[in-house]
Amino acid sequence: MSTLAVTKGHGTGNDFVLVDDRAGVLDLPAGLVGALCDRHIGIGGDGLIRLVGSALLPEGAACLAQDPAARWFMDYRNGDGSIAEMCGNGVRVLARFAERLGLWDDASAELVLGTRAGVRRVRRVLGPAGEDWYSVDMGPWHLTGGEAAERAGADALVAVDGLVDVRPGLRVDVGNPHTVIALADPAELDSAELWRAPRVEPAPPAGTNVELVVPLGEELTPDGEVGRLRMRVHERGVGETRSCGTGACAAAMAVRTWAGPGAPATWLVEVPGGTLRVRVIDGGRVELAGPAVLVASVEVDLDALGGGVLRPA
Amino acid sequence: MSTLAVTKGHGTGNDFVLVDDRAGVLDLPAGLVGALCDRHIGIGGDGLIRLVGSALLPEGAACLAQDPAARWFMDYRNGDGSIAEMCGNGVRVLARFAERLGLWDDASAELVLGTRAGVRRVRRVLGPAGEDWYSVDMGPWHLTGGEAAERAGADALVAVDGLVDVRPGLRVDVGNPHTVIALADPAELDSAELWRAPRVEPAPPAGTNVELVVPLGEELTPDGEVGRLRMRVHERGVGETRSCGTGACAAAMAVRTWAGPGAPATWLVEVPGGTLRVRVIDGGRVELAGPAVLVASVEVDLDALGGGVLRPA
Repeated sequence: MSTLAVTKGHGTGNDFVLVDDRAGVLDLPAGLVGALCDRHIGIGGDGLIRLVGSALLPEGAACLAQDPAARWFMDYRNGDGSIAEMCGNGVRVLARFAERLGLWDDASAELVLGTRAGVRRVRRVLGPAGEDWYSVDMGPWHLTGGEAAERAGADALVAVDGLVDVRPGLRVDVGNPHTVIALADPAELDSAELWRAPRVEPAPPAGTNVELVVPLGEELTPDGEVGRLRMRVHERGVGETRSCGTGACAAAMAVRTWAGPGAPATWLVEVPGGTLRVRVIDGGRVELAGPAVLVASVEVDLDALGGGVLRPA
Repeated sequence: MSTLAVTKGHGTGNDFVLVDDRAGVLDLPAGLVGALCDRHIGIGGDGLIRLVGSALLPEGAACLAQDPAARWFMDYRNGDGSIAEMCGNGVRVLARFAERLGLWDDASAELVLGTRAGVRRVRRVLGPAGEDWYSVDMGPWHLTGGEAAERAGADALVAVDGLVDVRPGLRVDVGNPHTVIALADPAELDSAELWRAPRVEPAPPAGTNVELVVPLGEELTPDGEVGRLRMRVHERGVGETRSCGTGACAAAMAVRTWAGPGAPATWLVEVPGGTLRVRVIDGGRVELAGPAVLVASVEVDLDALGGGVLRPA
């Protein structure tokens, strides 16, 4: 029986199979990743993250050249085994994993990780109730439709199953494409059926994630003015998920745009899987903070994996 | 950090969290079971099966009174934590688990297990390609509509998303209610959309599982005449699943009814999660055989379980 030790973790319900491969000795072909991420015949995860020495991959070496502190690399794979760039919830969970492995000592304010989207800096922060959270700079954001979309507050039309009317949507780019629509109240949010992709006009060539949001107002906290919103998301090619890091960022930036000048820089975003905090930094960048949890240590029987149903490559 | 050791296993993609609690010392409230079975913030499973000494539960004691060999009991819970009676795929996986724990020695032809549906006997058998399979007597079956339904071949009307016409369906009882409809070919089977429950007339008061089947003919094998069919299933209250043990039995009994006198007693049923074998025994009973696979040993961090999202009771 050949076995593989993995760890299962999640950030607001966005879950991952984590593999410690610091020495870069593991071969993880797409079929094996797909079997591990399969929720019925494998372990289950939205994706798999391999922690590997940056120097061992060309993409990691590029990160090391940019910042010599980026010793460890996030080799992220989608649930189907294909290679992916980055994941806002995943990078926090990987940082938590590195912390447990002793790769992030208590004295260091931040952990620098290499990713296929470049260097990412994760910091330990406190959540709104004093929880141990992690924050990461998600990079630049912008309204896809520019100033015209900002003035109009919308530059798309979105039809969602379960909602009667076609809604105006605002397109937001956070490295990947999003379209955000506002709903009147939580009841209307609950009535949306997101198993099928919403129809968006004009149809983006590469598709779009769609966020349905209900703004819940703003409040003064010890950390200053904080906006609050609730959100559900349909991820392109996936379906409804419990959480989407870039989706939370896009939703907060859309609601902030609608709120106009003087709107808070910090937003708490309630997703089905928990709460995330989105903050505008330097105007054009966005930071995502939230929990990262390691749930279980798993010893996978590679011979049994797939169980005759799916044969790893 | 308090931990719980569990095992993850599946039978044709119907998957379970298995807990060895032979001494009956574990408290598994519904909230904890739900968190363990949650596929994103827990381990993930269609249900949880606790292996416990039969003498330690009233339902187990009743099984022991019926057969003193039923030393071990299948305490089966649904994924939401509610108590369930039995599961045809689950009882095989539990037998495989008992085998690994050394509770079923190689010399014994069968393992007798207590369940809330009574005593179940599991036997080691060979699959069609010589695989190690397990079979279990699933108990009596009958056509819900009796002889009139047998003559007509149908006693219900079923509308399925993605299929143009309303179809005639045959109701089959295998301890729980099923309605089976026949489709012309695999392409038509693929076109059905089963995320929403099919509409069945007359509507059964407690709902019904619905099986869509494509008969694939009969062939002569070394074991005699064997029928073959492909099936997809919508489980009431759950949605489409990769496999359903009683559903496979119901599907085979419906196709056998349609085939008329002289139809084979043995049927291979291809479900999305693999292949099952259904056999009529003593005319009025049905036996289910198929694989049972243990995929991983899991050490769950009970403090992290749920991760602030779902709080175990």
